[in-house]
Amino acid sequence: MASSSLLSSKPLPFSSSPNPSSVALLPNPWLSFRLSRSLLARCSLVSRPSYAPHRIDDPSYVRIFDTTLRDGEQSPGATMTSKEKLAVARQLARLGVDIIEAGFPASSPDDLDAVRSIAIEVGNCPDEDGYVPVICGLSRCNKSDIDAAWEAVRHAMRPRVHTFIATSEIHMKYKLRKSREEVVRIASEMVAYARSLGCEDVEFSPEDAGRSDREFLYHILEEVIKAGATTLNIPDTVGYTLPSEFGRLIADIKANTRGIENVVISTHCQNDLGLATANTLAGAYAGARQVEVTVNGIGERAGNASLEEVVMAIKCRKELMGGLHTGINTKHIVTASKMVAEYSGLHVQPHKAIVGLNAFAHESGIHQDGMLKHKSTYEIISPEDIGLTRSNESGIVLGKLSGRHALRSRLLELGYDIIGKELDDVFKRFKEVAEKKKHVSDDDIEALISVEIFQPHVIWLLGDLQVTCGTLGLSTATVKLIASDGEEKIACSIGTGPVDAAYKAVDSIIQVSVTLLEYSMNSVTESIDAIASTRVVICGDTSLTSTHALTRETVHRTFSGTGAGMDIVVSSVRAYLSALNKMLAFRVAFASKAAPKISQIQSFQTT
Amino acid sequence: MASSSLLSSKPLPFSSSPNPSSVALLPNPWLSFRLSRSLLARCSLVSRPSYAPHRIDDPSYVRIFDTTLRDGEQSPGATMTSKEKLAVARQLARLGVDIIEAGFPASSPDDLDAVRSIAIEVGNCPDEDGYVPVICGLSRCNKSDIDAAWEAVRHAMRPRVHTFIATSEIHMKYKLRKSREEVVRIASEMVAYARSLGCEDVEFSPEDAGRSDREFLYHILEEVIKAGATTLNIPDTVGYTLPSEFGRLIADIKANTRGIENVVISTHCQNDLGLATANTLAGAYAGARQVEVTVNGIGERAGNASLEEVVMAIKCRKELMGGLHTGINTKHIVTASKMVAEYSGLHVQPHKAIVGLNAFAHESGIHQDGMLKHKSTYEIISPEDIGLTRSNESGIVLGKLSGRHALRSRLLELGYDIIGKELDDVFKRFKEVAEKKKHVSDDDIEALISVEIFQPHVIWLLGDLQVTCGTLGLSTATVKLIASDGEEKIACSIGTGPVDAAYKAVDSIIQVSVTLLEYSMNSVTESIDAIASTRVVICGDTSLTSTHALTRETVHRTFSGTGAGMDIVVSSVRAYLSALNKMLAFRVAFASKAAPKISQIQSFQTT
Repeated sequence: MASSSLLSSKPLPFSSSPNPSSVALLPNPWLSFRLSRSLLARCSLVSRPSYAPHRIDDPSYVRIFDTTLRDGEQSPGATMTSKEKLAVARQLARLGVDIIEAGFPASSPDDLDAVRSIAIEVGNCPDEDGYVPVICGLSRCNKSDIDAAWEAVRHAMRPRVHTFIATSEIHMKYKLRKSREEVVRIASEMVAYARSLGCEDVEFSPEDAGRSDREFLYHILEEVIKAGATTLNIPDTVGYTLPSEFGRLIADIKANTRGIENVVISTHCQNDLGLATANTLAGAYAGARQVEVTVNGIGERAGNASLEEVVMAIKCRKELMGGLHTGINTKHIVTASKMVAEYSGLHVQPHKAIVGLNAFAHESGIHQDGMLKHKSTYEIISPEDIGLTRSNESGIVLGKLSGRHALRSRLLELGYDIIGKELDDVFKRFKEVAEKKKHVSDDDIEALISVEIFQPHVIWLLGDLQVTCGTLGLSTATVKLIASDGEEKIACSIGTGPVDAAYKAVDSIIQVSVTLLEYSMNSVTESIDAIASTRVVICGDTSLTSTHALTRETVHRTFSGTGAGMDIVVSSVRAYLSALNKMLAFRVAFASKAAPKISQIQSFQTT
Repeated sequence: MASSSLLSSKPLPFSSSPNPSSVALLPNPWLSFRLSRSLLARCSLVSRPSYAPHRIDDPSYVRIFDTTLRDGEQSPGATMTSKEKLAVARQLARLGVDIIEAGFPASSPDDLDAVRSIAIEVGNCPDEDGYVPVICGLSRCNKSDIDAAWEAVRHAMRPRVHTFIATSEIHMKYKLRKSREEVVRIASEMVAYARSLGCEDVEFSPEDAGRSDREFLYHILEEVIKAGATTLNIPDTVGYTLPSEFGRLIADIKANTRGIENVVISTHCQNDLGLATANTLAGAYAGARQVEVTVNGIGERAGNASLEEVVMAIKCRKELMGGLHTGINTKHIVTASKMVAEYSGLHVQPHKAIVGLNAFAHESGIHQDGMLKHKSTYEIISPEDIGLTRSNESGIVLGKLSGRHALRSRLLELGYDIIGKELDDVFKRFKEVAEKKKHVSDDDIEALISVEIFQPHVIWLLGDLQVTCGTLGLSTATVKLIASDGEEKIACSIGTGPVDAAYKAVDSIIQVSVTLLEYSMNSVTESIDAIASTRVVICGDTSLTSTHALTRETVHRTFSGTGAGMDIVVSSVRAYLSALNKMLAFRVAFASKAAPKISQIQSFQTT
């Protein structure tokens, strides 16, 4: 299977090598909320018309096109491994998104691989109602990009190629250096080329449509419709438009483009002025029946319209939105939000609408009777609607005497169905915590799950660590690491603090060039003797790159790692090793990959 | 001066007891941006009509009413000290906001004190153009609230009382338990009462206007205009409306309310569906000439419309917004954003519009030539517009041989004009860092400034700390604290990790009941040997409370503390002591205060 080949070679002795499909939920360990048990139940409460690329039989149905894995993942520091991308794609399918834009396959061989495994594994599992998400790959308007995209998505039951070219004067002049006529010709030819490969579902985007000449826009759209495009996506690339203006743009396109009735109109709104959600809603109201969004609104710069805001606004204000509806099962929103925040490293601010930590918190008040009795005085969405239930005292149940069975029961209640080797690993770590702590809370368990199950392929494992520090002397750390062949190495180092000393000791063993870009830590909420979760982002040498879809620039890959532990120095070292392992695995994969079968792809590799 | 009397008694031996006015800027230590030097220069580039409460002579001018210190500060965990509030108010004045809603004086004696010092110190310094912000206090519709609000704001050159009562059926029925007639009578009487005290600038808000009966809304607004209200604020309390709907609400009120031409209409939009900015713009377009906003969009639940988004959208799309303009000097936005994030503890997500860390970052690319040469291909706002300039290599200049003069010069370049005792304190900490680090970067300096200058009154000081931890044994910490009378106390403790052990040792010395609510840490970006900044939020016993303006519920106060150091355990202990000191100072102030009768208000000052 493609996915297992993504992260290097033969199984290693202590690799947990988990199959992502066995873990349904990955909550953010420092949110003091419980995921409701009902999440595990299969829900098909939504009415979804059957899928045809170029039309939607229900005129009020809005397709949700999620681009978290493409537009979101190209944010600075948001690089995800193929395994993480696959887990997110599964969650998006659970959420019921209509289209998953899984990546930009021409960006790098690794991106192509990731999209292909999503196409194979997530794009081939229809539910009892026949629902299976469309798997989409982005491509610029050239044959090699389209070849790569098609190669990646063609394994899905419903594959789509999404190709784009800029149509605003400023972009055509400075970025493309092409005339209007050339741009129209290229767009038409490339849409036709994608269709000629056998792809019946082709989306076209005129980049920077918000600033494009209106008549020219109608013209190029007409031409790509003739060439076979089935969805026309209208991006506000610079996040510049106001809602009334963007709604008008969609209405004008609908009114003035010949053949538009035979395709689906889509929106793609950036958030530079904080208006992406409003613009998206205005576009849908004006006739767009696909909206491009990301979970948590992540994306470059100020991000994209956020899935949860757009979906919940359509749901809450259905009558004002002309009866529009989506196929999203909103109860999976919180899980998706936590997973994307964790994997992308793009945290969500406490006052983020719908999914922020405070979004449903009224205050740390002594009595909340009034609010609880008549929630609608201040609450327009109930926490349960998005899969959030408040934690309660009964959360603390496990202790040092609890056995494997008790842990497994609790894990099931929390939504994790874990067995075999993975359960063994979690249980071992659980016992370590229980030795030191009287009660092991649900938050502790979730923190353990998070770091134990979603760790990258292990190349270096932490053996032991010993640290002395304080205001009185030089910080000193001694580290023992175990290599994948079982060899143990020990090094010590001084440093400006305990973490610096420990990282220097690790560096002296592993000996790779690494820059630490970010370091952050959060404790689980309840108290300081809870588990601390550390996150680092590192950048390796210059050989690990990908190509940016819009700017065409070469982008350095960065790697994140998380670690948990009751000792913050230990969790810091675990996080660092996790990021290092991810980077080392990537490097191996990068170096070992032959060109995927299309000849042009070789040239995308950095040499 | 009121400010110096806010936080307790006589100077203590190691108290830096700074005057907030001496520190202009407080950047967030982990942002890798420099504030531009030009921030220090006085700017008056904006055209601002002279102030009259009930009218604006320029029909295109939109007043910015900032409620960061009221609506924002009542978010969970966002409690600020009076000193912090004063510093934020000064920054809001620098930004050029028209009205500062400084707090809810009836909430607690401390809130009243804070509003009064802002009225005295920030509300009395007109610039050469005559600009001085209006200082506003919130009150429910009852005499004692209005008395407290007036007592707090009356010292300002331009005082305003803002009173509100709910007008939606659901709120009148379940929260107020009053009939429509009673609500109208109370509102009119209380507006008239505020005017009778001598307040010529009275704002009235019909709470939950978005869900109120339209005809009833016109009626109550007419009555309060007759009673003397000068500004009518229309809140979308539950963040429920869509932009077209909210714009229509404002237009309808403007068209159907008798006497509306003699007052200013205002918007107040919550962000529960992610639409606050769009709704605010729609309201302004429809005729509102005051908009209520907060820095970073903070506030309860999903927060409010964010100042920076609303202001920049009006600025960037002026022609589409009908030529509207504001008096905001946008170059001060970044500083305000950083200060509010730091003091409120409500961090800003990387993809937040305008002020997020990524908002202007394109990618960590190898070459950004295309973007830099033609910025407008992707950038609609230049970083300089909001006071952001990118840091460069020349940032690293200071080392262990640098003297006081070099440090002071660099501080000035960074925007900090610090002298005397404060400079001594920063210099001492600088030398400690320089002993361990070859180069002391600007980020390091800013982290030092942040924790050194804005610390609360010191009651317990960290003497020494010694820690042993790791995977091999029990974590042990020994802590020496110095009390305000100079007495030294030493305690040791074991714990589940080094921080837990150290906090337990601190607890055993200080012996107060404390719950740790949050613990987080960020390193300055460059590397792990940079300074780590730790933040904790604690909650004390149940006696420290305030009253929530809208829900009328009693709210537990929480206290945040930050600490910096190259050793994460040391910085963690500093942060904990900082929060403890803040809480202990509050408790002293709280205990000494009598009930808030107007005659006794002098006694609210800490003695």
